[in-house]
Amino acid sequence: MQQSFPMNGGDGPHSYLKNSHFQRQATIVSRTMIEEAIAKKLDVKCFSSNPFRLADLGCSVGPNTFIAMQHIVEAVERKYLAQGLKSEMPEFQVFFNDHVANDFNTLFASLPTQRRYFACGVPGSFHGRLFPESSIHFMFSSHALHWLSKVPEELLDKNSPAWNRGRIHYTSGPEEVSHAYAAQFEHDMEIFLSARAKELVIGGMIVLIIPALPNGIPASQNPFGIMFDLLGASLMDMAKEGLISEAEVDSFNLPIHLASPKQMTELVERNECLIIERMELVDPRSNPAGPINGKECAMFLRAGLEGVFAQHFGSGIIDQLFDRLSKKIMESSHQLESGNKEGTLLFVLLRRK
Amino acid sequence: MQQSFPMNGGDGPHSYLKNSHFQRQATIVSRTMIEEAIAKKLDVKCFSSNPFRLADLGCSVGPNTFIAMQHIVEAVERKYLAQGLKSEMPEFQVFFNDHVANDFNTLFASLPTQRRYFACGVPGSFHGRLFPESSIHFMFSSHALHWLSKVPEELLDKNSPAWNRGRIHYTSGPEEVSHAYAAQFEHDMEIFLSARAKELVIGGMIVLIIPALPNGIPASQNPFGIMFDLLGASLMDMAKEGLISEAEVDSFNLPIHLASPKQMTELVERNECLIIERMELVDPRSNPAGPINGKECAMFLRAGLEGVFAQHFGSGIIDQLFDRLSKKIMESSHQLESGNKEGTLLFVLLRRK
Repeated sequence: MQQSFPMNGGDGPHSYLKNSHFQRQATIVSRTMIEEAIAKKLDVKCFSSNPFRLADLGCSVGPNTFIAMQHIVEAVERKYLAQGLKSEMPEFQVFFNDHVANDFNTLFASLPTQRRYFACGVPGSFHGRLFPESSIHFMFSSHALHWLSKVPEELLDKNSPAWNRGRIHYTSGPEEVSHAYAAQFEHDMEIFLSARAKELVIGGMIVLIIPALPNGIPASQNPFGIMFDLLGASLMDMAKEGLISEAEVDSFNLPIHLASPKQMTELVERNECLIIERMELVDPRSNPAGPINGKECAMFLRAGLEGVFAQHFGSGIIDQLFDRLSKKIMESSHQLESGNKEGTLLFVLLRRK
Repeated sequence: MQQSFPMNGGDGPHSYLKNSHFQRQATIVSRTMIEEAIAKKLDVKCFSSNPFRLADLGCSVGPNTFIAMQHIVEAVERKYLAQGLKSEMPEFQVFFNDHVANDFNTLFASLPTQRRYFACGVPGSFHGRLFPESSIHFMFSSHALHWLSKVPEELLDKNSPAWNRGRIHYTSGPEEVSHAYAAQFEHDMEIFLSARAKELVIGGMIVLIIPALPNGIPASQNPFGIMFDLLGASLMDMAKEGLISEAEVDSFNLPIHLASPKQMTELVERNECLIIERMELVDPRSNPAGPINGKECAMFLRAGLEGVFAQHFGSGIIDQLFDRLSKKIMESSHQLESGNKEGTLLFVLLRRK
């Protein structure tokens, strides 16, 4: 059984809609790279048929997905013009994909009214097929592929060396735990890439933006890794105060993996239909990065993670958990600010052979 | 501005999901007619490309739409086999369309897990374009096209002869009111048919199932017309008791039109790209039709109409309105049971030239 952890729906103070400006920065940083990819690498002449179909995999509820889709549509339009194909300008159809439990009602209600594309919602896990064969020309996925399809099974077995006592992630954990996460990620990515290779038209492209680690750097030096450790420490504090049980913490693991460029390269190379056009780490922070704001960081993490914590611990602990996290982030701000100068997001551009 | 009146969402006791067995009967009655249309009239050899794309326009939240879509997919599969095209069997993609305000979250959560198609939701009014040009092979719309895109404007003008005092529908009203409804329906259908003609591939088909009247029969002899009159009478009773004001009733009109085969034929013939393959009235009731159950009828009408009444009168009156309707239906059961022997639903099969 695959697990589903949607971002917070609706438009309330803890919604993803109101707390996704961090992810939006990544969209801004990657915009030029996507425009360059389309201008230099996308051969629209080889696409015979109208319309041009785009997909956002793990789109959540907006507004980031609308901004990204509009940039891509505009870049493709410029490409048609640049290639002297004005008379063959296609209509655009955009497929917004996320889990069935995603709040599609909110997504649809906030669709831009002036959009230049036909919009569809596609419910389902991208760890499987979503579209007919050879039907999509350009795919995009931002801040989604780091979610595993499920917690690796070994982590749920008390007698396994991968039993992750007192922690909620592989950051700072024993090697067996890291291995279990990596194996699950490799399994998921193999399925993901194989499905996308079937769905893309020949010459079609896919852009992935994924929270990631530089080669050879442990998760404990990465801002996300550090924050997962702080979340784990907050939970252990609450267990010590008797608010939850230690057993609950022991049996909980965040199904999130931080890949390295090396790991991603190896995984793509196993797929015979896709080739890497570009892969590099980028830094989504504004330059120079300002000081860390604990409350803001905690709100951003809460919009994405509340569901997975509430499912396991109940929703009663959520306010307190993220309040504690906010304080711990401020205490660790020096460590967080100095982490990962090489960039915390991996930009990957693939082409369908 | 177009108006939107979604069926009741969710899965509660008044939801469309739980109160749409009446519409389901129509799906059962029309099943054979759709299968015949696909077997005899659909030329799948002229469809060059994989996949086969279907759309349900005004799908609401299920389960009726899932039943209808599955029947169509199965009939098309049989057609490919019958034409010796087993090796060219396409993948299927189904587009579930309804207003933005439709409860797509419930629709997606109840999608059959064993479906043989890729599913998409398409938010937006079918009184306008929904899909790229030449991209859909088969369209279906049941119990949806009788909704007008808005209440005709003349009805909102106190000084117009079409001011509909003391009634909520053109049934039993003056000729000017009927004319205003008919003109709005013609305008809406022209836009609907023109959009569909653009979206269908050549040889593609569309099945419409619409609450309708036999030629030359007034709405006051039709079960729907009678029930709209009973709803109007219930509201007037409530106004006399001071629960609402008469002015509120005067300014409210149900944006629903009951077309005749003659009217539909004329409208389709105005469109140069579509031809009528079949059009006939059918009776959705089981045979022999059992006695009318007032409560069941009222529940079925409530699931579809609660939204439009609540928007105008406030949700406080809804329980009482439909309780009163239920009683009035029982008092008029003889009149309702004897109405429209020729059938109350119009089955229309169109083909894209």
